[in-house]
Amino acid sequence: MPRAVTIAIDAMGGDNAPAAVLDGLEAFARSAPERRFIVAGPEALLTRELASRPAARAASSVVDAPDVVAMDAKPSQILRRSKGTSMWAALAAVKAGEAAVAVSAGNTGALMALALLQLRTLPGVHRPALAAQWPTPKGFSVVLDVGANVDSDPEQLLDFALMGEAYHRALTNVARPTVGLLNVGSEEAKGHEDIREAARVLRAFGDGLNFSGFVEGDDISAGAVDVVVTDGFTGNIALKTAEGTAKLVGGFLREALTAGPVSMLGALLARGGLARLKARMDPRSVNGGVFLGLNGLVVKSHGGTDATGFAAALGLAGRIAASNFLPEVEASLDKLARSRAGASAAAVPETIS
Amino acid sequence: MPRAVTIAIDAMGGDNAPAAVLDGLEAFARSAPERRFIVAGPEALLTRELASRPAARAASSVVDAPDVVAMDAKPSQILRRSKGTSMWAALAAVKAGEAAVAVSAGNTGALMALALLQLRTLPGVHRPALAAQWPTPKGFSVVLDVGANVDSDPEQLLDFALMGEAYHRALTNVARPTVGLLNVGSEEAKGHEDIREAARVLRAFGDGLNFSGFVEGDDISAGAVDVVVTDGFTGNIALKTAEGTAKLVGGFLREALTAGPVSMLGALLARGGLARLKARMDPRSVNGGVFLGLNGLVVKSHGGTDATGFAAALGLAGRIAASNFLPEVEASLDKLARSRAGASAAAVPETIS
Repeated sequence: MPRAVTIAIDAMGGDNAPAAVLDGLEAFARSAPERRFIVAGPEALLTRELASRPAARAASSVVDAPDVVAMDAKPSQILRRSKGTSMWAALAAVKAGEAAVAVSAGNTGALMALALLQLRTLPGVHRPALAAQWPTPKGFSVVLDVGANVDSDPEQLLDFALMGEAYHRALTNVARPTVGLLNVGSEEAKGHEDIREAARVLRAFGDGLNFSGFVEGDDISAGAVDVVVTDGFTGNIALKTAEGTAKLVGGFLREALTAGPVSMLGALLARGGLARLKARMDPRSVNGGVFLGLNGLVVKSHGGTDATGFAAALGLAGRIAASNFLPEVEASLDKLARSRAGASAAAVPETIS
Repeated sequence: MPRAVTIAIDAMGGDNAPAAVLDGLEAFARSAPERRFIVAGPEALLTRELASRPAARAASSVVDAPDVVAMDAKPSQILRRSKGTSMWAALAAVKAGEAAVAVSAGNTGALMALALLQLRTLPGVHRPALAAQWPTPKGFSVVLDVGANVDSDPEQLLDFALMGEAYHRALTNVARPTVGLLNVGSEEAKGHEDIREAARVLRAFGDGLNFSGFVEGDDISAGAVDVVVTDGFTGNIALKTAEGTAKLVGGFLREALTAGPVSMLGALLARGGLARLKARMDPRSVNGGVFLGLNGLVVKSHGGTDATGFAAALGLAGRIAASNFLPEVEASLDKLARSRAGASAAAVPETIS
């Protein structure tokens, strides 16, 4: 796979496609002139739309894909009628090695299904996971799975832990990121049997993983660990709950600062700090979940995002494609394969005797 | 059960007991002189401590309970050595009809186990649930279960829905509170099989429940529905994630308003609005989860709370004990019993023929 970063873009994915996608591309292409793009969608439409976006046009080649995966498509429809779609074409560019990463704001379930179909999982990985960067006082933690799967067994959670820590390491150069397992209490006896079994599996992996034990919901935003591992159901609800809470608090803050003329004057004086706060709380600035565990990189942008959010997803895609993520995760999975082989070999005598 | 409200208090539960508990009681007794209290704990200690808290002393009788349930007690220890504890004595006062509600900041698992043992569940209820009041732009929503159980089947989720809407109705007088089921998407095909089956069970209850379908994590803080139903694992993680997020945003806000002298002056001018914001975001102001589904009311205060938080839990206990909650929930459970009886009766011919 080429190391010079080319990003494949599903131009027709998302609620505001293609305008938000192409405006985001134009903004990003201006700020990152070293990146190249493969833009997938109906050729005539894209050629026309790119004419008014000079930075995007100069850095892009167009791949014709006449069809679109509907945002509300059912899984059965997606697999049957996907080959001519812009989403399919963007993933195909990664499969062919023409792009290092694909970005789509389209239907999450469709993106997962088509990415699995075309790219397959890395050796030893049961299922891919969707990883989010979660803001903390120190910077960010990685949380996964935030919605690629609706449930996960302990062995899958071990895969997620290894992929998540490789992802964190690739982005931050922290040598041994700490890993926590999301639970309803931090004591060993807390939670249901599956989660306690997962903790035993993660602990049994030994030095291969810097496992800190259980963490609770409030530990995520506190940055208690670098990587938070959870099943896709719980992770998706935690992520969206945090988004909703930040929005609620933002609304309360707006009310507080417009409560009367003196408060409004105060807000005016504090506008520098408040603008930075707004930028920090802007969900668009952390837009982009990454599918981990595939033979290739795929970034999912929020479906309802605008040009600013899509540009942020392109930035994340470029950073991770230029990072050591794939060699890092392959090394981790290699350790996992040896550990599982060791475990089965060790198990044989017991079974026979 | 007497309607004049007497509140039984576990004086020794919580990280800061008994000081935080008794200071909270003193503050609450001053603001609500019509309430009466039964305070459970070591008699000599409590008599001494109450001497310096005149409002609390005037409104309280002490029940001697020499032992304490440790905050980190294991479930097996709790049931064996609980009879002499302050937690047991507070619950016993509710069982005997001497108090309308018990409040404890002690070990959640112990409180659930001892409450079940003494009060038992209401007829037809499989398991009690812990319900939280969740701030929204309009006021609050009820979210349950936030941690009494680690998993819940569809029939239990129906119990939670009926108990949650009766609780909301009793506190707000909204005639038909809307009920949503927490999931990873709002479309019918989303989520795992258990949650889709739960949606069918809730929908099948018909007019007895104002069921709005699935809601997502960000819908909770938006106040999209009046009652959010979920299993105790997911609900506990959602609640703590929201607490952590509010704390993170609060920290970011503090940084923004101390970023320089002009911002600090601005914050000084806006201090009226910001103080109200701080009060709204103060987790102590919504301290207190209510165990629903028992033959009697039990309020769980946060274990680490201070006097202000404990006073808020006493306020909640008083409001719910003075409300129509118990008759409301009994009426709902009666409908449920008739519906289940109808369902079995309807099922009989099929089984026979």
